[in-house]
Amino acid sequence: MENTTRIAAQLAFLSEADKLKSVLRATTLCDSSRRENSGEHSWHVALFAATLAEHAARPVDVGRVIRMLLLHDLVEIDAGDTPIHGAHDPAAQAAAEQRAASRIFGLLPTDQGREFRTLWDEFEAAETDDAVFAKSIDRMQPVISNLESGGQSWRQYDVTLAQIETRVGIKVRRGAPTLWAALKARIDTWFSEA
Amino acid sequence: MENTTRIAAQLAFLSEADKLKSVLRATTLCDSSRRENSGEHSWHVALFAATLAEHAARPVDVGRVIRMLLLHDLVEIDAGDTPIHGAHDPAAQAAAEQRAASRIFGLLPTDQGREFRTLWDEFEAAETDDAVFAKSIDRMQPVISNLESGGQSWRQYDVTLAQIETRVGIKVRRGAPTLWAALKARIDTWFSEA
Repeated sequence: MENTTRIAAQLAFLSEADKLKSVLRATTLCDSSRRENSGEHSWHVALFAATLAEHAARPVDVGRVIRMLLLHDLVEIDAGDTPIHGAHDPAAQAAAEQRAASRIFGLLPTDQGREFRTLWDEFEAAETDDAVFAKSIDRMQPVISNLESGGQSWRQYDVTLAQIETRVGIKVRRGAPTLWAALKARIDTWFSEA
Repeated sequence: MENTTRIAAQLAFLSEADKLKSVLRATTLCDSSRRENSGEHSWHVALFAATLAEHAARPVDVGRVIRMLLLHDLVEIDAGDTPIHGAHDPAAQAAAEQRAASRIFGLLPTDQGREFRTLWDEFEAAETDDAVFAKSIDRMQPVISNLESGGQSWRQYDVTLAQIETRVGIKVRRGAPTLWAALKARIDTWFSEA
């Protein structure tokens, strides 16, 4: 592919990615002023990974983890965000995300689209050490937002302590047990006072 | 430092970082629906770097470039955003950003705060190959937003083609000459039709 055509394809992908800033999540900002969008969430989780990689359960390549997290939510441009505490059809959501991944990574030059898609597939599969840690970071960041904002999305979805353990704790603990221990102490306090 | 204290310091830094999502920039989203904030901008430039690193003027460590870009605007939490086409006092702004860097990176455990600060200093100095490329990415992303949104911030600040060359072109070309050539063609077209 000629360089000009290659750059045009890459810029088309990056312009399309801009739409992630308009996908709203269940979680609010820490100051509870508004709902968070998936673009700024993706930045925040990447910064979480850069800061907390030393606590990964197993050694990780932090550069790969960060690239996974930069890409991990792009499919939401087509498929929307799925609040973990909300009701949804997992099979339909997974199918929609697969279609979205094909379309969005398909905007890139073929070799690069394949590379990004492979990284996204790895994140979704959550089997490699890098992906397991990336998933635990993705689950812990909204816990911090809830703890800071007075439990905005926990209250909205009537979340119980047991549900946080099942939907969040298991995944965070798998990738970063010491981080989960630190969060769990704050979560217990929050629920005991709520 | 005991691990619990260390994690608490890291989480305090990450909660503070959340405020970057409330710092508004001059640029709008590509669909011109609202102004962009510096948190989502930081995600977008990191994704630009991950996608466009092959076009760097000199070989770069893309992982370092991305980490620089994740951190580069945190000082705006205290010092605010400085639109490149707006009037401001560079010395006062630089002093405010130095104070902000000391406070914000100072929330981290000492060793990590020093590491992040060194990376931010390197970005600001714009001398190493990684920093030069990171700066060129930081300057080109708002060009894309302007081209896509009908020149929202260019119109607001009455920006001329010559000013774009001086304030943007020189920096983008230094770090990524082929990317600037691609942008320049689109910028020339936009101004000839504006």
